[in-house]
Amino acid sequence: MLVILDPHVSPAHRSAIDEAIRGAGCTIAETPSRRGLLLVIDGDLDRLRQIPLGVFPGVRKIVSLSKPYALSSWEHQAEPTVVNVGTTRIGGGHFAIIGGPCAVESRSGLLEIARAVKEGGANLLRGGAYKPRTSPYSFRGLGLEGLLILRDVGQQTGLPVVSEITDPRHIEACISNVDMLQIGTRNMSNFDLLVEVGKSGHPVLLKRGRSATIADWLLAAEYILAQGNPNVVLCERGIRGFDPLLRNTLDLAAIPAIRGLSHLPVIADPSHATGRAAYVAPLARAACAAGSDGVMIEVHSHPERAQSDAEQAMRPAEFRDLCEDLRLLLQVRGGVTRS
Amino acid sequence: MLVILDPHVSPAHRSAIDEAIRGAGCTIAETPSRRGLLLVIDGDLDRLRQIPLGVFPGVRKIVSLSKPYALSSWEHQAEPTVVNVGTTRIGGGHFAIIGGPCAVESRSGLLEIARAVKEGGANLLRGGAYKPRTSPYSFRGLGLEGLLILRDVGQQTGLPVVSEITDPRHIEACISNVDMLQIGTRNMSNFDLLVEVGKSGHPVLLKRGRSATIADWLLAAEYILAQGNPNVVLCERGIRGFDPLLRNTLDLAAIPAIRGLSHLPVIADPSHATGRAAYVAPLARAACAAGSDGVMIEVHSHPERAQSDAEQAMRPAEFRDLCEDLRLLLQVRGGVTRS
Amino acid sequence: MLVILDPHVSPAHRSAIDEAIRGAGCTIAETPSRRGLLLVIDGDLDRLRQIPLGVFPGVRKIVSLSKPYALSSWEHQAEPTVVNVGTTRIGGGHFAIIGGPCAVESRSGLLEIARAVKEGGANLLRGGAYKPRTSPYSFRGLGLEGLLILRDVGQQTGLPVVSEITDPRHIEACISNVDMLQIGTRNMSNFDLLVEVGKSGHPVLLKRGRSATIADWLLAAEYILAQGNPNVVLCERGIRGFDPLLRNTLDLAAIPAIRGLSHLPVIADPSHATGRAAYVAPLARAACAAGSDGVMIEVHSHPERAQSDAEQAMRPAEFRDLCEDLRLLLQVRGGVTRS
Amino acid sequence: MLVILDPHVSPAHRSAIDEAIRGAGCTIAETPSRRGLLLVIDGDLDRLRQIPLGVFPGVRKIVSLSKPYALSSWEHQAEPTVVNVGTTRIGGGHFAIIGGPCAVESRSGLLEIARAVKEGGANLLRGGAYKPRTSPYSFRGLGLEGLLILRDVGQQTGLPVVSEITDPRHIEACISNVDMLQIGTRNMSNFDLLVEVGKSGHPVLLKRGRSATIADWLLAAEYILAQGNPNVVLCERGIRGFDPLLRNTLDLAAIPAIRGLSHLPVIADPSHATGRAAYVAPLARAACAAGSDGVMIEVHSHPERAQSDAEQAMRPAEFRDLCEDLRLLLQVRGGVTRS
Repeated sequence: MLVILDPHVSPAHRSAIDEAIRGAGCTIAETPSRRGLLLVIDGDLDRLRQIPLGVFPGVRKIVSLSKPYALSSWEHQAEPTVVNVGTTRIGGGHFAIIGGPCAVESRSGLLEIARAVKEGGANLLRGGAYKPRTSPYSFRGLGLEGLLILRDVGQQTGLPVVSEITDPRHIEACISNVDMLQIGTRNMSNFDLLVEVGKSGHPVLLKRGRSATIADWLLAAEYILAQGNPNVVLCERGIRGFDPLLRNTLDLAAIPAIRGLSHLPVIADPSHATGRAAYVAPLARAACAAGSDGVMIEVHSHPERAQSDAEQAMRPAEFRDLCEDLRLLLQVRGGVTRS
Repeated sequence: MLVILDPHVSPAHRSAIDEAIRGAGCTIAETPSRRGLLLVIDGDLDRLRQIPLGVFPGVRKIVSLSKPYALSSWEHQAEPTVVNVGTTRIGGGHFAIIGGPCAVESRSGLLEIARAVKEGGANLLRGGAYKPRTSPYSFRGLGLEGLLILRDVGQQTGLPVVSEITDPRHIEACISNVDMLQIGTRNMSNFDLLVEVGKSGHPVLLKRGRSATIADWLLAAEYILAQGNPNVVLCERGIRGFDPLLRNTLDLAAIPAIRGLSHLPVIADPSHATGRAAYVAPLARAACAAGSDGVMIEVHSHPERAQSDAEQAMRPAEFRDLCEDLRLLLQVRGGVTRS
Repeated sequence: MLVILDPHVSPAHRSAIDEAIRGAGCTIAETPSRRGLLLVIDGDLDRLRQIPLGVFPGVRKIVSLSKPYALSSWEHQAEPTVVNVGTTRIGGGHFAIIGGPCAVESRSGLLEIARAVKEGGANLLRGGAYKPRTSPYSFRGLGLEGLLILRDVGQQTGLPVVSEITDPRHIEACISNVDMLQIGTRNMSNFDLLVEVGKSGHPVLLKRGRSATIADWLLAAEYILAQGNPNVVLCERGIRGFDPLLRNTLDLAAIPAIRGLSHLPVIADPSHATGRAAYVAPLARAACAAGSDGVMIEVHSHPERAQSDAEQAMRPAEFRDLCEDLRLLLQVRGGVTRS
Repeated sequence: MLVILDPHVSPAHRSAIDEAIRGAGCTIAETPSRRGLLLVIDGDLDRLRQIPLGVFPGVRKIVSLSKPYALSSWEHQAEPTVVNVGTTRIGGGHFAIIGGPCAVESRSGLLEIARAVKEGGANLLRGGAYKPRTSPYSFRGLGLEGLLILRDVGQQTGLPVVSEITDPRHIEACISNVDMLQIGTRNMSNFDLLVEVGKSGHPVLLKRGRSATIADWLLAAEYILAQGNPNVVLCERGIRGFDPLLRNTLDLAAIPAIRGLSHLPVIADPSHATGRAAYVAPLARAACAAGSDGVMIEVHSHPERAQSDAEQAMRPAEFRDLCEDLRLLLQVRGGVTRS
């Protein structure tokens, strides 16, 4: 860590600074510069970070030389993480195609969709049971009943299943019934929930918060990893944008950025990103071409009967065509996993 | 509600649309226009909204003529809501000055700060016990112990207290010890938590989510109001901006916007909005001049010892000066509550 | 156009509204609704739009049923526009690969780069002569001399050339020397400049403004088209984002969105979008897979000597590899031009 | 400047780095750290900044210790700048109230408004002659005729006048007829235009670009100052936000931020910021309370006849009330100019 001081810092202020740094068990090497005194700090920097050096009189600027997310970075692990979700692998060259409805609505409806996405090419089934909805007056999911339907349909079709958890009190029910826990964009910074899914050891699909930077997102992953759960897959699903035409702004630069910073797999969800079925296939292809480890796609056999997010749902035939495109793109991409 | 159809909609598609609308118990009046057929819909629109008309072939556009947040709007209640927090009233001309540290760090430290903010002019004490932190390696608060300290110090100084709740499992502990529950920006869309604080009937300080529109925010309030809890105070605390100079962008237009749309009180938190102590006083004055029902200010006797958000903490003497400014501004503002 | 009135509008206000609408040569058809009176307006809507109906007492909402950009929409033209830039065609299935340095720095340097990008697979050469720079103390380009070098090097290598115009007073110099005029992101709303390039009839590469919506961007194109110049190619180059890691946020949803709304070709510039050479190839591939009509890539033989934007410049060998990837992707994409 | 190197940088790369730095006439002092080698650079840093050190192999990070905007910073000038516009002074305790219509529409109309704003309390008259409009089909101003009307009405009422310049070719016409040149938000980065108004020496009102950081904005001011023109007033007018309810997001933290970084006066334009007349007065009061050096307000005697931006125009009586509020607030504020 570098601490840059005002060249005219008073002796009293200077010794308060030195004391705080040394008190945290760190060493100081000093270098003068025309623009300010420069302190190079080594030692227990995690402990030092608890001290707000920035408010000490005489401190101008603090420059961190290390990344705040340790466990998710390549410094911690040199090989890409591969997450096993039932029989499906994600990362390290294994590409996930997650398909299914926004919400589990009925047993027969889900079974129809699950069969279609499996036939189309999906290797993981999605379906929401606990649905966070902007309005309290919208359909909020079937809850536990939805989880049970999802489990059964997953078993019938042979697809592992992923569903969102929104409340730490649901952890037992979710773990018992789904293969992968999804943390939605609204809960990326629900740290109590992250700690719970971390403790569970279960595979986690961690969506990016709508206003989260890449660093915020990796720090959210760090909450899960720090509980000893290495099974984290990141999911870019669009950040807050300003164009009323689109629901969110899909930030595909996050794919190479995460690849450069972290060993964790990263996939994309173009359905929530755009909110429009017509844009989903082009952006799913784009995510694949950018090097993602998978895509998550909303599919519904009858969008006109869907109880949530109908406007972004693909129909099964469109999904099958997309899966075919993805297969061709993956051939072109070859083995590239760390572009 | 208006539904605009393609002028060339096929008869089959047209009857599917009509059937769906009538099936939801609504009536249709039709008007032709050069640009499309226009359906004016009346009846049980809440039920109709569950049907995704937007994906029906032949539908071009849907225009809602009513607001999605019913209970928080002036249509529901003609008088401004006044929320009682212990002996302090907020709204309807009553101005709250909430002061205190980011986090409760120790009994003696909090007592020192509480006495200072009371003397300065605060009528409500803040202090975090459960702290959501971006990094899992940062200080996360004293938890229950922090709540107990906060309660005691509040009683000693005669100040009602407000503290953040982050987990529905903490609801009992929070209700027993604090006068007002704060929902932080990261949890504005944690709907399970909103339902819990709604059920409690306790006063709630609902911060705006970092990427929430005004409508998203009022819908979050609606989750609480819909549980029968009318004691909601909104708090603008800055939205996600793009300038690295500032932590967030304080959106003071939210003050008159909320005033125009809702009977709920609205205050501002310039400490979190800017992240810099030097900007807090000018923006607190600005919030007051814009018509807010209060301000929330972080104060610390020794910022250089603070364990979180030290850079945005005012010192007690600065806080006292600010309170004096606010008193003068409130005199100028006079009785204006619905500008 | 629909105008929704307050159901309790006074007769005087009502007749002022009717008069204004009829005075603009429009007709009114009236439909009652529980939520308000509804006026369906037909006639000379362009003329009516000059009247600020929104401020008339009694008007609640105005809903436009037509798009504000006429000439760039599919309603105006059913076939995709193909723009000829020298011997290179863009749009309608023709894919442009524009390569070259940020700025023209010297004759020999540009020639070296031009030969490399031609060999790599580029069919258009870029190079800035008039450089808009955030700081007045940065290198601002060689001006006219740069244009002359660019023209000569283009002729030597057989590549048509594109360069940015920043001032209407440079129009003659630019037209005489380059095959395509670029309007940069900072000048997307420099309407006097748009009118000049419109009058010229010359091919124009219109970059999206950093905070422009898709509609703002198409309206900027409309300024050029309205002067009788149909040769407009749109270029997505990243919008303002909030993550300090990236220079901008590449909004690839703009590719299918423009494709759905307009017949104009649309390409992507991942170099300016990210500001980092390592992210350029993945995002260029993504743009191609999303259906773009081309990409624009900054290439420099010696980035460490570049006088601007060095951190985003690819080296010639990397560019060649990318061109090879693009060729494979285009084969997969097949003839898809209107996905 | 600090340059942080990879601890394992190769000797060849290391000497290339040293050579580049020394070749720019700078000196290097080296300090080792566990996290990397640290080079402290002094000397001609402006020259060094032309070299893209960031792309040299072995360079990890570059930290600048000085601000890029020299002339606008307090380091350049210790006293606040006061700009004289005719008889009106702005800055250093002098508060500007700029009122008038969006556009000059007619001589009689402008005279009526000018008399009203003067009587209300304005000390500067605004009125657009060259109007940048998002759509080419909107009213674009009267041009030169508008300038002549504005000049005459200013003389008749004794108010200095300000009007927007959008094209460097209009510089003579603008200088001859108006007292202050406005650079609008769309042209903040039109550097050719900034250079022209810089050369003119005329007072300039420089609006913030919609996606400009504070630093971008001060660098735009630097373009004008670097031409020897010190008469620059900054104007915060709202940045791009994501809420469709508001036209822009007024960023009032810019007031104390500019105050802390620069000696230039800074005012606010709540009319363009919000686009809604009902929000203008609260936010004008807020800007004043935050310490601004003035406000710019759109006023129209008959908004329902206005040819542009009618929805944000105050009526003369509302403007008079606002001016009265501002007078009271300025009394409370006292002499505070550098809060």
